[in-house]
Amino acid sequence: MDRMSAAPPDPSPKRERLWRIIFLSDTPVGRAFDVVLLWLIALSVVTIILESVDEIRLPHANLFWTLEWIFTVLFTTEYLARLWSVRRPLRYALSFFGLLDLISILPAYLELLIPGTHYLMALRVLRLMRMFRVLKMAEYLGEASILLAALRASRRKITLFLTTVIGIVLVEGTVVYVLEHEANPDFANIPQAIYWAIVTITTVGYGDVAPITVPGKMMASIIMLTGFAIIAVPTGIVTSELGRAMGKPLAPRRCCNECGWEDHDPLALHCQHCGTKLSSSAE
Amino acid sequence: MDRMSAAPPDPSPKRERLWRIIFLSDTPVGRAFDVVLLWLIALSVVTIILESVDEIRLPHANLFWTLEWIFTVLFTTEYLARLWSVRRPLRYALSFFGLLDLISILPAYLELLIPGTHYLMALRVLRLMRMFRVLKMAEYLGEASILLAALRASRRKITLFLTTVIGIVLVEGTVVYVLEHEANPDFANIPQAIYWAIVTITTVGYGDVAPITVPGKMMASIIMLTGFAIIAVPTGIVTSELGRAMGKPLAPRRCCNECGWEDHDPLALHCQHCGTKLSSSAE
Amino acid sequence: MDRMSAAPPDPSPKRERLWRIIFLSDTPVGRAFDVVLLWLIALSVVTIILESVDEIRLPHANLFWTLEWIFTVLFTTEYLARLWSVRRPLRYALSFFGLLDLISILPAYLELLIPGTHYLMALRVLRLMRMFRVLKMAEYLGEASILLAALRASRRKITLFLTTVIGIVLVEGTVVYVLEHEANPDFANIPQAIYWAIVTITTVGYGDVAPITVPGKMMASIIMLTGFAIIAVPTGIVTSELGRAMGKPLAPRRCCNECGWEDHDPLALHCQHCGTKLSSSAE
Amino acid sequence: MDRMSAAPPDPSPKRERLWRIIFLSDTPVGRAFDVVLLWLIALSVVTIILESVDEIRLPHANLFWTLEWIFTVLFTTEYLARLWSVRRPLRYALSFFGLLDLISILPAYLELLIPGTHYLMALRVLRLMRMFRVLKMAEYLGEASILLAALRASRRKITLFLTTVIGIVLVEGTVVYVLEHEANPDFANIPQAIYWAIVTITTVGYGDVAPITVPGKMMASIIMLTGFAIIAVPTGIVTSELGRAMGKPLAPRRCCNECGWEDHDPLALHCQHCGTKLSSSAE
Repeated sequence: MDRMSAAPPDPSPKRERLWRIIFLSDTPVGRAFDVVLLWLIALSVVTIILESVDEIRLPHANLFWTLEWIFTVLFTTEYLARLWSVRRPLRYALSFFGLLDLISILPAYLELLIPGTHYLMALRVLRLMRMFRVLKMAEYLGEASILLAALRASRRKITLFLTTVIGIVLVEGTVVYVLEHEANPDFANIPQAIYWAIVTITTVGYGDVAPITVPGKMMASIIMLTGFAIIAVPTGIVTSELGRAMGKPLAPRRCCNECGWEDHDPLALHCQHCGTKLSSSAE
Repeated sequence: MDRMSAAPPDPSPKRERLWRIIFLSDTPVGRAFDVVLLWLIALSVVTIILESVDEIRLPHANLFWTLEWIFTVLFTTEYLARLWSVRRPLRYALSFFGLLDLISILPAYLELLIPGTHYLMALRVLRLMRMFRVLKMAEYLGEASILLAALRASRRKITLFLTTVIGIVLVEGTVVYVLEHEANPDFANIPQAIYWAIVTITTVGYGDVAPITVPGKMMASIIMLTGFAIIAVPTGIVTSELGRAMGKPLAPRRCCNECGWEDHDPLALHCQHCGTKLSSSAE
Repeated sequence: MDRMSAAPPDPSPKRERLWRIIFLSDTPVGRAFDVVLLWLIALSVVTIILESVDEIRLPHANLFWTLEWIFTVLFTTEYLARLWSVRRPLRYALSFFGLLDLISILPAYLELLIPGTHYLMALRVLRLMRMFRVLKMAEYLGEASILLAALRASRRKITLFLTTVIGIVLVEGTVVYVLEHEANPDFANIPQAIYWAIVTITTVGYGDVAPITVPGKMMASIIMLTGFAIIAVPTGIVTSELGRAMGKPLAPRRCCNECGWEDHDPLALHCQHCGTKLSSSAE
Repeated sequence: MDRMSAAPPDPSPKRERLWRIIFLSDTPVGRAFDVVLLWLIALSVVTIILESVDEIRLPHANLFWTLEWIFTVLFTTEYLARLWSVRRPLRYALSFFGLLDLISILPAYLELLIPGTHYLMALRVLRLMRMFRVLKMAEYLGEASILLAALRASRRKITLFLTTVIGIVLVEGTVVYVLEHEANPDFANIPQAIYWAIVTITTVGYGDVAPITVPGKMMASIIMLTGFAIIAVPTGIVTSELGRAMGKPLAPRRCCNECGWEDHDPLALHCQHCGTKLSSSAE
């Protein structure tokens, strides 16, 4: 995906060399670049997390301020280098990884306008997704593709399910609001009641909002017992799709030339129906 | 379903034309009517939700009062138009969508008798279910029918399961009530203890009611660990049924030329109904 | 089961007739007896639940006292009648339903010794399990037997799993106790910490006991993320077994006499492998 | 595993005899040793748990101190005897069970340095895992191996999934921190917000940390509804793998007479490795 949106630059040798280092990891230098980058990203995320703790930041305010700007300057340089070395900068800038790279440096500059937002730099953690590409974790990518295939296959069912859940939550929230809002300040308005219904139906159950009247508790009991059955649906969807997605790569269809029998083991040498030797090129 | 309960009216051309606009969406005008209606429903629901927030309603009380009555008059007119244009008004009024249409205007008038109930107008959100028909979301309907088929197939198992859960909750609530009610005002009576048992067994766990005595906590621990196993049952039911419901369309239909029997195993060589050899090209 | 433990009495006609009324429901009188009994049980359970609510009991203390003793006398008479009419009274008394019948009248007498225990009469709700027999809900019993078969098949796996969970909970409770007990009175002792671990691993999460120190919260986070994976295990077990249990009654094996092909559709008339007519007696 | 790391000692008869008693359970004495040991472990764990309860320890401080040191001396002696009798002491000491044995006596001595840590002796409960070996619970081991096989098969998917969840939790924690931290002291820093995100996504939901601002609650609602779909993934993984692991022993093994290939489809007519016709009697 990254490689697709970042087509090789025109043959200016300098830009070509830089592009190869930054975007590919098939040369020692390119690989070293990626590894150093990943460590810098991880370090900058840890820095931001630690900085948010008053007890740690206050005694070392200058240190954190310095570190943060070092990381920001480094990542900005890297972003500009990517833009310069790639053949179609706009296409890269609008690609998934391009937007991610931008998002991970923007909060530092946004901080100058809206204080407090620089913590969003922790979103840099998303850049670690490059890791999977660098570490050549082929097996993990294989597993991921099965998981993704299962999720993609159930996409429509999950959309339908989430729409239904949102409808249910709206109705339940309103009904409990009508029952509770006079006696219970926690149910002061419908959005608050919907928040409660979401907390309940997902079985999170903080308890910061809870019904106190008898009809409210009765309604809540019905909602919980119904939610019990509802929670089973997404699990059922993902499990079924996963079962299908996992079944497929296990059964590469090798059809016998003689009898057309299809259901062969990937390691089979002979057709298990008629005994004809299977052509090995089919794999 | 809607179309079933709303049979075409007698040939008075005016009523016929109105019926076509309101109930069908196969003409440009009929489609426009449905789209406008859906937007009006969505807007009216948003209005009601916002109105319930004191900070928003109080400064614009008149605006909300006006908006609410505009929506109510519009929906009442629409309801009467439906009743008038349809051939069998009573049958429509008692149909699923007919009742829904009534429910969505009733609270406004009920408010005049019982203050606070007009918020039930948010139940109008249920009318958005018409959306699926209008948008001709055939694929979504396909997915929905699989989900519904799985739920319908597990209907009896889920009924049985819910009955069992209600029995369990009654017994558990009573036992913990006997253990706790003297020390803990949260367990003042059995209905309250049953409410606690439902909150616990569904793993919602608000914490507004919780055992405080040692035997109460021991009993609660046993209940939670048992509930752990129980929660697996509905998931198992839905998953299994979903796997079956999803498995069916995957089974490649091989129809017998002689008798038309359709439900053959993919490996079958002969029709299992009449014994005719199946043509292998059907695969 | 009931019928098994209650063998027909010796031929004294009076006892025989009573036995037929009480234990069977194949005569109009026997059926009426069962229906009346079920309603009495349901009413007595509702009475006990309502009685536990102070606001309802206090104004009608005498009424509840009277009702309770009427039910107790009725059920005691019924219990003695069962003992007298059955051929082997001891065997009935020790059977599952016999013990249930005893348990449902005992608390009333126990109340005279230990005040407060008479609420255990709500355990009478368990007697409603007879309902399934009376109402001849054959389909429900079929479904129940599939559910029970799945649970029985996964019995050993669930035992193993619960043992593991108890071990995990013991270890986790101890570790968090060591980390928390000095700063947090909620973790005053290990049993309390184990209670917390159970509340956490089952995702109930009341919040009445929660870690407050940084290492305690870190440990709790690890426990929760691990529990995330653990909760999947019982669901997986039940789903797999349910899939198997549901698969079995659907596929009654009908073996072809000619070729031994086993995997036939229950409706198949001919072997789908060789085309021989299947013997219909195999069903 | 235990037996593997504890190779038979050199032929000094005394050490050989001791080794046989301690490590094996095939002689009456060896079996008695194991049973006594298991009871001692269980008793010592119960002692530690009871000791942590102030109400129980304070009146019997001396008793608990004595009991604890008796157990410690006994287990230390046992550990030294194991080290002495085994042929390769270092290999035993570094084996899984060897480390467990050390961990279960270390906290008593550590207590002399760091007060409060002796409660970690409750980790002794892990030594009860030897039980499965002693009781020769072959069926349970069979079940356990299916569960373990399913978990091992899904190891990579679960790793990937947990990594993703940690990433999600980091991002969600940061976003809610930015939205909440000024109004809500519960979200004072990012680690705290991450703790909240973990409590939420696992649906534990203590409620000790909860959003209070409107944007915070909206974000939390989105997180919960998303988590709803996410929680389905590990269940789906384990169920699918479990289905596969359970399916395998069900597949009747049909071994080829010629080449010994075992993994045949139940419907196969020819060996898929060498093409020899399979004997149909094997079914």
